[in-house]
Amino acid sequence: MPEPALASRSHVRQLGARAHYERETIYPIIDAAPLCHVGFEIDGQPYVIPSLHARDRDAILLHGAPDSRLVRHLCAGHPVCVSFTLLDGWVLGRAACSHSMNYRSVVLFGAARPVTSPAQKLRALELLTEHMLPGRWQEVRPPSEEDLCQTAVVAIDIEEASAKVRTGPPVDSGADRTPDIWAGVVPLCMLAGTPVPAGSEQDDTPLSGAVRAYFERQDRANKVK
Amino acid sequence: MPEPALASRSHVRQLGARAHYERETIYPIIDAAPLCHVGFEIDGQPYVIPSLHARDRDAILLHGAPDSRLVRHLCAGHPVCVSFTLLDGWVLGRAACSHSMNYRSVVLFGAARPVTSPAQKLRALELLTEHMLPGRWQEVRPPSEEDLCQTAVVAIDIEEASAKVRTGPPVDSGADRTPDIWAGVVPLCMLAGTPVPAGSEQDDTPLSGAVRAYFERQDRANKVK
Repeated sequence: MPEPALASRSHVRQLGARAHYERETIYPIIDAAPLCHVGFEIDGQPYVIPSLHARDRDAILLHGAPDSRLVRHLCAGHPVCVSFTLLDGWVLGRAACSHSMNYRSVVLFGAARPVTSPAQKLRALELLTEHMLPGRWQEVRPPSEEDLCQTAVVAIDIEEASAKVRTGPPVDSGADRTPDIWAGVVPLCMLAGTPVPAGSEQDDTPLSGAVRAYFERQDRANKVK
Repeated sequence: MPEPALASRSHVRQLGARAHYERETIYPIIDAAPLCHVGFEIDGQPYVIPSLHARDRDAILLHGAPDSRLVRHLCAGHPVCVSFTLLDGWVLGRAACSHSMNYRSVVLFGAARPVTSPAQKLRALELLTEHMLPGRWQEVRPPSEEDLCQTAVVAIDIEEASAKVRTGPPVDSGADRTPDIWAGVVPLCMLAGTPVPAGSEQDDTPLSGAVRAYFERQDRANKVK
């Protein structure tokens, strides 16, 4: 990924102090985001579609039905913008206009290309499955030749990207810092609840190890807080 | 909002059984989504920017800095697409290709217009504050004339919209329904953690009533699950 020029598409124009342009900041946000929003344009009309994703080095992988508008349009090489957003908290100031959110977000630009070789598609589906739930790929039936035919994979080579991050308390002006209004941050995070088995009530298959590990990580993260 | 034609921008082309075109399905998703992703296009380049939002009848309200690219571009009347996504769970099939997510999403199209009258801007900022945290508007200092000058408000009149919803267990083919692989759904939801006051350690301002009510609703929702 080349370093972006300041006047490029990626230059964060608002609240520039929150902007970051380094892989060390950008990639962990992409990897932590459960899904992304893909923007493309047809005849001057913008479209924004949510999608699962995975990152493979300097590329974003998406998958979909081979005949989907998204897949067909991207594979034709049109420019694409992908946005990743993690909401970390409501920022509640003492004035209405000092309300905000704490977040980590990435906006990236790139060109898409179809991934067509069966080996590369298989690798992409492994990364997409592992992005959803690390360890899951080893537990499940891998894609058959037919599965691979029915799934299109698109890679978006990242040409430019920027991250924007807000952390910390609300910023109220001195005059607003009166003690009669509570101000602060309500932290937010995505949490997993009790797994619901797909089978009937007779289902005594032990819970997936990947799901158990997911909950162990979640419990550890919550104890740290 | 006129009913969309089937060949319109809003027609859901993939997995049409998951598609909905009624206000009763679409508006609760918009209202429950903490934020949205706004897509616009400049010289053939798509942009997707996360934003806080509120709904006012058949319009979406956004706010930002008056000189922001998003605000200036939208106010010029260019077409816009706004996407709202609530992730409800990982759907873990027994085959890699039967993995999916449970979600509620809305994609809408419209034209933006600036909201310029101070009374309408004030009303918009009230709706935006209340979308973040119901009851908060009454607790805080309302926007001053200066605040209103420093904040631009944009309304996007909804011309077309569609919702896409997936619920329920994974769908595996008969051959894959073997008892040796755990399959099911891991429910996901956004949860609020312990509020962090903005003040110093001497701060003994009682916790905001709006925040307390938020936690009470959250506790009730979790007891129902």
